[in-house]
Amino acid sequence: MRNFASDNHAGVHPAVLEALAAANDGRAGAYGTDAWTERVEELFRRHFGADARGFPVFNGSGANVAVIDALTRGFEAVICTDVAHMHVDECGAPERIAGAKLHTVSSHEGKLTAADLDRWESRRGDDHHAQQRVVSITQATELGTTYTVEETRAIAERAHELGMLLHVDGARLANAAASLDVSLRELTTDCGVDALSFGATKNGLAFGDAVVFLRPELADGFEFVRKQLGQLASKMRFVSAQLEALLEGELWLDNARHANAMAARLAAAVAEFPAVEVLYPVEANAVFAILPAAASERLRAELEGDPPFYVWDEDSGAVRWMCAWDTEPDDVDQFAAQIGAALRR
Amino acid sequence: MRNFASDNHAGVHPAVLEALAAANDGRAGAYGTDAWTERVEELFRRHFGADARGFPVFNGSGANVAVIDALTRGFEAVICTDVAHMHVDECGAPERIAGAKLHTVSSHEGKLTAADLDRWESRRGDDHHAQQRVVSITQATELGTTYTVEETRAIAERAHELGMLLHVDGARLANAAASLDVSLRELTTDCGVDALSFGATKNGLAFGDAVVFLRPELADGFEFVRKQLGQLASKMRFVSAQLEALLEGELWLDNARHANAMAARLAAAVAEFPAVEVLYPVEANAVFAILPAAASERLRAELEGDPPFYVWDEDSGAVRWMCAWDTEPDDVDQFAAQIGAALRR
Amino acid sequence: MRNFASDNHAGVHPAVLEALAAANDGRAGAYGTDAWTERVEELFRRHFGADARGFPVFNGSGANVAVIDALTRGFEAVICTDVAHMHVDECGAPERIAGAKLHTVSSHEGKLTAADLDRWESRRGDDHHAQQRVVSITQATELGTTYTVEETRAIAERAHELGMLLHVDGARLANAAASLDVSLRELTTDCGVDALSFGATKNGLAFGDAVVFLRPELADGFEFVRKQLGQLASKMRFVSAQLEALLEGELWLDNARHANAMAARLAAAVAEFPAVEVLYPVEANAVFAILPAAASERLRAELEGDPPFYVWDEDSGAVRWMCAWDTEPDDVDQFAAQIGAALRR
Amino acid sequence: MRNFASDNHAGVHPAVLEALAAANDGRAGAYGTDAWTERVEELFRRHFGADARGFPVFNGSGANVAVIDALTRGFEAVICTDVAHMHVDECGAPERIAGAKLHTVSSHEGKLTAADLDRWESRRGDDHHAQQRVVSITQATELGTTYTVEETRAIAERAHELGMLLHVDGARLANAAASLDVSLRELTTDCGVDALSFGATKNGLAFGDAVVFLRPELADGFEFVRKQLGQLASKMRFVSAQLEALLEGELWLDNARHANAMAARLAAAVAEFPAVEVLYPVEANAVFAILPAAASERLRAELEGDPPFYVWDEDSGAVRWMCAWDTEPDDVDQFAAQIGAALRR
Repeated sequence: MRNFASDNHAGVHPAVLEALAAANDGRAGAYGTDAWTERVEELFRRHFGADARGFPVFNGSGANVAVIDALTRGFEAVICTDVAHMHVDECGAPERIAGAKLHTVSSHEGKLTAADLDRWESRRGDDHHAQQRVVSITQATELGTTYTVEETRAIAERAHELGMLLHVDGARLANAAASLDVSLRELTTDCGVDALSFGATKNGLAFGDAVVFLRPELADGFEFVRKQLGQLASKMRFVSAQLEALLEGELWLDNARHANAMAARLAAAVAEFPAVEVLYPVEANAVFAILPAAASERLRAELEGDPPFYVWDEDSGAVRWMCAWDTEPDDVDQFAAQIGAALRR
Repeated sequence: MRNFASDNHAGVHPAVLEALAAANDGRAGAYGTDAWTERVEELFRRHFGADARGFPVFNGSGANVAVIDALTRGFEAVICTDVAHMHVDECGAPERIAGAKLHTVSSHEGKLTAADLDRWESRRGDDHHAQQRVVSITQATELGTTYTVEETRAIAERAHELGMLLHVDGARLANAAASLDVSLRELTTDCGVDALSFGATKNGLAFGDAVVFLRPELADGFEFVRKQLGQLASKMRFVSAQLEALLEGELWLDNARHANAMAARLAAAVAEFPAVEVLYPVEANAVFAILPAAASERLRAELEGDPPFYVWDEDSGAVRWMCAWDTEPDDVDQFAAQIGAALRR
Repeated sequence: MRNFASDNHAGVHPAVLEALAAANDGRAGAYGTDAWTERVEELFRRHFGADARGFPVFNGSGANVAVIDALTRGFEAVICTDVAHMHVDECGAPERIAGAKLHTVSSHEGKLTAADLDRWESRRGDDHHAQQRVVSITQATELGTTYTVEETRAIAERAHELGMLLHVDGARLANAAASLDVSLRELTTDCGVDALSFGATKNGLAFGDAVVFLRPELADGFEFVRKQLGQLASKMRFVSAQLEALLEGELWLDNARHANAMAARLAAAVAEFPAVEVLYPVEANAVFAILPAAASERLRAELEGDPPFYVWDEDSGAVRWMCAWDTEPDDVDQFAAQIGAALRR
Repeated sequence: MRNFASDNHAGVHPAVLEALAAANDGRAGAYGTDAWTERVEELFRRHFGADARGFPVFNGSGANVAVIDALTRGFEAVICTDVAHMHVDECGAPERIAGAKLHTVSSHEGKLTAADLDRWESRRGDDHHAQQRVVSITQATELGTTYTVEETRAIAERAHELGMLLHVDGARLANAAASLDVSLRELTTDCGVDALSFGATKNGLAFGDAVVFLRPELADGFEFVRKQLGQLASKMRFVSAQLEALLEGELWLDNARHANAMAARLAAAVAEFPAVEVLYPVEANAVFAILPAAASERLRAELEGDPPFYVWDEDSGAVRWMCAWDTEPDDVDQFAAQIGAALRR
């Protein structure tokens, strides 16, 4: 049984691995001057619109830090939720490396709203205060929920009215698009999103994500930012070939749909257990739930994986169960059965 | 014919690609909590001594910037040559990201000497002056030469006498070890080297290099530095599996020896042409030479590759011809013949 | 009538100005190599203990950012309250310049407690998370309250148990010591405080504050940090002479006592008005209160000063009334009368 | 006898001290919202043109680092000489704090030329290389020479042709203007200079310099940069009052002329000694010379001051003799006599 710890524990989708291997075809230009990267740039335009400019990078934290660095001056700030990956899981890189202060909002089910953006406006222009320039939302959120098209558009509009830009941390953007049954473009460019971190590693790659600017003038100079922040691959074809495999057909969507379906299956299964409280709408590939402490401990002791799933909040006992492109229905069913058994003991 | 532009234009060695594919074996812990990474850590100890602590990273610039960040406080400086990769090819990252000023020395054939280290000592303790803390040498150098064991030891000794540390940018460390016919350990740990950037991408990987500390106390906290600087791979097994393939047997050495031999073959071939002046001892996998301008232009116009080789210095007309693990004797012979033809016209 | 906007609106105490003028006595060594600075260093030892090492700097934000830079590595974090000056009034400098993430705690009357320090311990050692290394408390707090000796000691003890250091932002440390009727040393060194920003500008200088390390090993290299962060005065005697005037006798205490007494007088006067709610214990030189909105607006329209006092919180209508060393009883009485008049209309 | 170590060893000009004392006139707005600062802003427009925007700061290093931070993105570089203050005397702050790599040029008598600007153009657009964006020249130079109006204009023109900006580190701009007998505006704005660090401390203040932008759009957001970099004085009137005293009449010019005249007097006096070689044209307030080693040591042993003058280059024995606004003809004559005596023994 595959565990439910993280979509980063999954391997590479076979089609992606095949593409990576196929890219090992003699010599190719370094640092992005290769045919695979050229094709991937075109694929980003296909998925996000003719003005989109996509830049392959190594990983998601790198994408976030580089895009924030590109979008802010040294004294500017980013508004995000208090559960945002860039706030709690990037080791202070947005602050130290991109030089951006984070203004945090208590999230509601992982999300902020357009109304939250006004909170720092009373200090706009006050030179003692870092000036909010970017709003960053995570899509799907760190809590497995999604922003609808309407919610995204409302945030973009308010951000623009206040002279700010909207960034989407799309580590699981594919899962959100699959869940909302919209295209990548409808969920980003068409909502007024300005720039995004496009997640691919969790969705079936060995490594590789991307920064995508949806307004081309924002990409000015980004090739230097990517290099300076250590995200320029020398043999970039091996990143781009993977991204191409994901994006040229519907693999990005199939993988995301599948992971989402597995999370829904798990949520449905545990709905049978009155002792389990599912915490948030299950809109992507994660289920957050509160388990009785004894059952939670028992499960973690019995199952393989280090850990088999994460305790998200020590105080409340909330746990996170994460599905991935490789999770099988049998994994879910077996896991649900074990949860049931742990609850019964 | 493979071109002579860069060892970054080469692909992945088949054994490395096979190892990468074999690592796609179900689930594995993320961020280095996997069996491949554990084995690679052991391999670094085998190659560099029991005290060595190796940390896989994405790329060589990332390795350099992260290790310099770990070894320096904000007001400290690094002594390196004026042709050092970290000075001319990392887009200012050592300065802005690691916060280190670079004190540069005019190189002699790519190298600095122990005597160069004293140059800033008159300002030791002067609070207006960035305090030199690290000496960084590149091995093999950017000009295709190597530091002997004795030269390295002398630099380490003088560095330590002055309270400094010795870092080796080993983007091509394997080529240097192969050239000098010594083990990796004899060329680093046994010379008193304190930390190094271990290059693997150029020597046959798709991506992946490493930071190796040879004194374990220097590694304290490095896991945070690696994460903050964007060099922590989520699915690290796919980096580590490649490193393992390189390091578990003698692939690292075979690839390096082969690339060196190809450079020597090319140097010998062009020695036949009186109009070509080879600039430095050919001790690794690069040949630097001065070609008559007309021949140089003709060659670049005729050959495939973008470019087929690099003009290193516009003023002198110096060019760099780089061999890699995949360069074949036929490539060299054909290239030498074309150089000859270009010279004759 | 002097306004109640800020203790930064006050001028220089006459004795301090006289000392500054007296320091204009021919030539003196630059960058702290002068007799005034030597004497001030001695005064810091007298006030804080023989191990104290004091460094004059230009201003309080400079002191905070420099000391945090000195006490943290790039991936480390500072725990402070959500009303801390360094969080809300230093334009993101602790993050960008000192490279420190701030972990914020909701304050209770401007204060945090020893128990708050444990909140991030579950992520100690987790390389995705900035590692808390320093606790910073403000004394007196931004809300005009003070930490008792016992509270300070409890925080220091817990900090040390967790491997952290305690920093005091003492922009108004003199006011706290005066209020608690303890010496500077009893309130810092004797409580286990490790380092502090010592405020002097607000307490009667034209300019000049200091960083004081209470454990000498923490001061190692700080002269370089001070220079690099732009806080090293070339003609330092003119900073040090002012600090000497403040610290050689009891001027620091007299000024602070007086400002505190004026705040207490104001608090007592407005206690007569049932419509005014004083928000926090008035333990230093500030009074925070809620005024009816109409009265608040009327007052600000009528009084001189730009503004005559600050609205602290637009939503609740809370205002801040700040006293300084130059506030006279008449100022207080007249202000209280005008508040009364505004309330009556 | 006043020594010849540094113009930072001089005190405050009496008229400046008087202005500082006169500013201690009751309450005034903090952080630049005061009448003195308003008047100084007007004086900067008077001296540098209607588009100039001046910002008082604490010191010259602060001015340099803040202006470079404002003018560059993270991956951009500054071209300066290898003797530039920002390269050798600011403890790496331009690199770490402003995030700018310095591209250095070997100076000729302290100066670079328009032709030097092209040196890095072959790597314009290459994402491995920090992109030159600013040229910084020091006026008067660190070696006591000046750039003529024509030289400055030629540098500005070439800089602008290459898409770069020209910054003047004017720590001794007044000395240069006095020497060349031109107005401040003729030497900066009218030559096409874009921004400058305006030095005042060395020219008679206790503390206080300024950043002046000569094209107003470059000042956008600078109030935040100044705050974030620790250069915003809370009681700014005490900086501004000093600057006003310097700039409202001709004190800036009188002080500079006087210091220059003293250097010329000293140069003329030592021209009598065949053993002394004056190294550069004496165009400002410094004399650089080579003294026989024995005489140099004797002089330094006998004279007061710590040191009485600086040895500029240990190897060549070059010394620097610095005059200031307070240097008297008697000081010069006495010093010259002592040099003569030291030479004779």
